[in-house]
Amino acid sequence: MAYIAVLGHGVVGSGVLEVLTTHTASITKRAKEEIKVKYILDLKDFPGLPYSDCFTKDFQVILNDPEIQIVVEVMGGLHPAYDFVKACLENGKSVVTSNKELVAKKGAELLAIAQRNNLNFLFEASVGGGIPIIRPISQCLAANEVTEIAGILNGTTNFILTKMIREQMTFGDALALAQKLGYAERDPRADVEGDDACRKICILASLAFGTHVYPDSVYTEGITKITLEDVDFADVWGGVIKLIGSVKMLESGQVHIMVCPMFVHRGSQLASVDDVFNGIMVRGDATGDVVFYGKGAGKLPTASAVVADVIDCVKHFKARKYLFWDEAKPNYIADFGSMKTSAYVRVAAESGDAAYSAAESVFGSVTRLLAKKPVESEAGFTVSGLTENELQEKLAALEERGVRVLNRIRISDY
Amino acid sequence: MAYIAVLGHGVVGSGVLEVLTTHTASITKRAKEEIKVKYILDLKDFPGLPYSDCFTKDFQVILNDPEIQIVVEVMGGLHPAYDFVKACLENGKSVVTSNKELVAKKGAELLAIAQRNNLNFLFEASVGGGIPIIRPISQCLAANEVTEIAGILNGTTNFILTKMIREQMTFGDALALAQKLGYAERDPRADVEGDDACRKICILASLAFGTHVYPDSVYTEGITKITLEDVDFADVWGGVIKLIGSVKMLESGQVHIMVCPMFVHRGSQLASVDDVFNGIMVRGDATGDVVFYGKGAGKLPTASAVVADVIDCVKHFKARKYLFWDEAKPNYIADFGSMKTSAYVRVAAESGDAAYSAAESVFGSVTRLLAKKPVESEAGFTVSGLTENELQEKLAALEERGVRVLNRIRISDY
Repeated sequence: MAYIAVLGHGVVGSGVLEVLTTHTASITKRAKEEIKVKYILDLKDFPGLPYSDCFTKDFQVILNDPEIQIVVEVMGGLHPAYDFVKACLENGKSVVTSNKELVAKKGAELLAIAQRNNLNFLFEASVGGGIPIIRPISQCLAANEVTEIAGILNGTTNFILTKMIREQMTFGDALALAQKLGYAERDPRADVEGDDACRKICILASLAFGTHVYPDSVYTEGITKITLEDVDFADVWGGVIKLIGSVKMLESGQVHIMVCPMFVHRGSQLASVDDVFNGIMVRGDATGDVVFYGKGAGKLPTASAVVADVIDCVKHFKARKYLFWDEAKPNYIADFGSMKTSAYVRVAAESGDAAYSAAESVFGSVTRLLAKKPVESEAGFTVSGLTENELQEKLAALEERGVRVLNRIRISDY
Repeated sequence: MAYIAVLGHGVVGSGVLEVLTTHTASITKRAKEEIKVKYILDLKDFPGLPYSDCFTKDFQVILNDPEIQIVVEVMGGLHPAYDFVKACLENGKSVVTSNKELVAKKGAELLAIAQRNNLNFLFEASVGGGIPIIRPISQCLAANEVTEIAGILNGTTNFILTKMIREQMTFGDALALAQKLGYAERDPRADVEGDDACRKICILASLAFGTHVYPDSVYTEGITKITLEDVDFADVWGGVIKLIGSVKMLESGQVHIMVCPMFVHRGSQLASVDDVFNGIMVRGDATGDVVFYGKGAGKLPTASAVVADVIDCVKHFKARKYLFWDEAKPNYIADFGSMKTSAYVRVAAESGDAAYSAAESVFGSVTRLLAKKPVESEAGFTVSGLTENELQEKLAALEERGVRVLNRIRISDY
C-alpha cells in the first residue's frame, strides 16, 4: 500500500480523487501496489464525500507523517504551493504537481533538492494537460538533439482565436463566450496576455535544453490586439493566427524564446489545432518534427496525467526519474531585438495606396495582401529578412510619415 | 560501460551506429554510462567503417559473451530474427527491436520470456518510427482507460494517397513515384495491401488492451483499388481517403479491429497527416483524444527510437519496464460481419439515375454525392447504420440488378 496526500481539492484535485476511484484496479495493476489517499489538504470543508474523513487543514500533519511518501500538489499559484513542495522534498517525500507557475518559476531549485535527496519531482500535467509531453521529451527523445519546440500551449486563447477565425466573432465576444463556458477566468489576463503559455514554454525549454528559463526573461505578447481584419489578412496570406510559444536553440548556444501570436500556414500541423486543444511540435535532429495533440486542460485529462506520475513514483521509489535541468545562466537568452523576423503589418493612411507607397519607401519592398473584406484606407502587407529592432525602427519611421501602424503579427516558419 | 550487440547492419542498423556515434555525449549523460557497440552481426562485409572490426557473422559469439547484456535486433523479418531474440532473452540478455513483424507475430511469447527472466523486451521503434507512442500508451496513459486507437500507420501508402489527392496522380503513377523515391519496395505488397499497417495496429491493440492480437485475425484491406473517382467523391463528401488501422474496445469486452481505407473528414486531425507522415489517435476515457504525429519511418527517426530504448535498458538493468500483454484468447476479436458500418459506394449502371434508383430501392435511402468530375453512368453515395454483412448482401443485391459495384470505402467517425 502506497499512501499519498493531495494538496488542494479544486478542479484538478477532485479529478485526481475521481481517477483514483474509478480506475483503481488498472492503477493497482500498473503500480503493482494499491495507492491510497490518506490526506487531502484544503481550507474548505467538503462534507458528504466518500473520502470526507481524509481532509485536513494542517499541512504539518502531512509533512510529519512518515507513511506519506508521495505528495500531490494541485493547489496552483506560487504560495503556499512552493513552500509546501519544498518542505516535502526536504523531508523525504516525492512530489507530483500540475502547477505550471511553480515549475516555471522554481523548477531548477526544486529539481536540485529532489536530486540531492534522491526523490522524484514530476510534473507531466503542468504542460499540455493530458497530452504526454514531458516524458516523451525527456525519455523517448533521449537519442536525439531537440533543436526547436513550438506549440499552441493555451486552450483558452486558442478557443477565442478559433471563434474569431471560424465565426467572425470579435475578440471581446469570443472572450465573453469563453468565460461563459468556463474556459476563461473572470480575470482572463494570465491567458489572453500570454503568461500561461509563457510558463509552459519555459518548462519545455528548460527540460529540452537543460537550463532554466524564467518567465520574466521571455518576450511575451498576448492576443488582445487581434482584430477580425487581422484574421482576414491571415486567411488571404494562406493561414490562421495562433498564439505560439516557441524556443529554438541557436548555433551560438543561446536560445531564442518568445510567446506571441503568429501567422501559421494552413498546411502546418499546428494550423488545424482548434478550439481548446493544444498542439506541440518538437523538432529533433534525428526524429524530424513530432507533434503532440490533445486537450491541454480540463479536470480529467490533467488528473490522469497527475495520477500517471504518481504511479511512476510508486514504481520508482528508489530510482529517481531523470528529469533535471540546471539553474539559469547569464547570456543564455538571445537578445530579442537582434533576432531575425518575418511579419505581417496592418496600417492605415489617407488611402490604401498611400499606405503601400509609404511602406515601400520605408521597407524597400513589401508583399501586399489583398483583404477579402477591405477596410477603407487600410492596407496589409508582409515583410521579411529583418531583425526585430529593424522592424521596430521601420514601423516607427512609418508612423513618422503619418501612417498609423494598427498591428503587426509575426510569421512562423513551421 | 554497457556493451551491446547490433543484429543487422541495414538501414536501421547503420542508423543506430550513426546515432550512437553522433550523440555520444548526451547519450552517456542520460544513460549514466557509456554505451559501446561490441558486435555487429551481418552476413555482408563492411570494410572501411570506423567500427569495421566489430562485425561478426556468428551469432553464437554474441550469445555466449557474458559482457553483452543488451542486444539490438534490427534485421527485420521473422526468421532468423525470432530465433535470435528468443535465444537472447533465454540467455539473460535484454532485447531492443524495431521489427514490427516480430512483435506482431511473437510479442506475447517474447514478453513472457522476458518477464520470466526479469529482462527488458522493448520495441518503441516498431510503430511510428521516431514518434513516441509505445511508451506514452503504456506509461503516460496509465491512469486512463484507452477505448480506441486509430491511425495512419504506413507512410508509403499515405504518400501514395497524398499524391492521388493533391496531384491527381493515379495509384499506379503514385506507386511508381514512391518506388523511385525509395519510399516503396520493389515488391510493394506489404505496404499497399495493408499488411504493414496491420502489424502495427496489432502491436498497439495488444499493448493498449493487454491481449495479443495476431495479424492473421484482423480484417485487412489495402489501397490498390482506389481510383481518382473515389478521391473526387471523398472530396465532395468533405474529406480525404486515408489508410486507417483501428481498434476499439467494445462493451462486450471484445475488440473491433481492422485495417482499411477510410473517408476521413477534413476537420479530423488525421486528415491533415500527409505524405510519408504517420498520425496516431489514442482515445482515452480521461484524456479524450490525443494524437501523435511525425515521421513513421526512415533511418534516423527509427534509429533514435531504438537508441532511446537502449538507454532505457541501461538505466533499468534490474527494473523491468512494464510492457506486457497476455497470449491471445478465443472470441476476443469481434465478428467482423456483425460490426456496424458506414460506407461510401461507387457504382455504374446504364445511367447515373438508374444507379441511384436501384441503390435507393435496395438500401431504402442513400445520401447522393455529386461528383465534381462526373463519370458517365457512374454514381456515388453513402449509406450508414447497417452491419458489414448487411452491406455485403445489399451490394450483392445491387449487382443482381445489373448495377456494377466499383468500390466501397468505409467512413470513419473521427
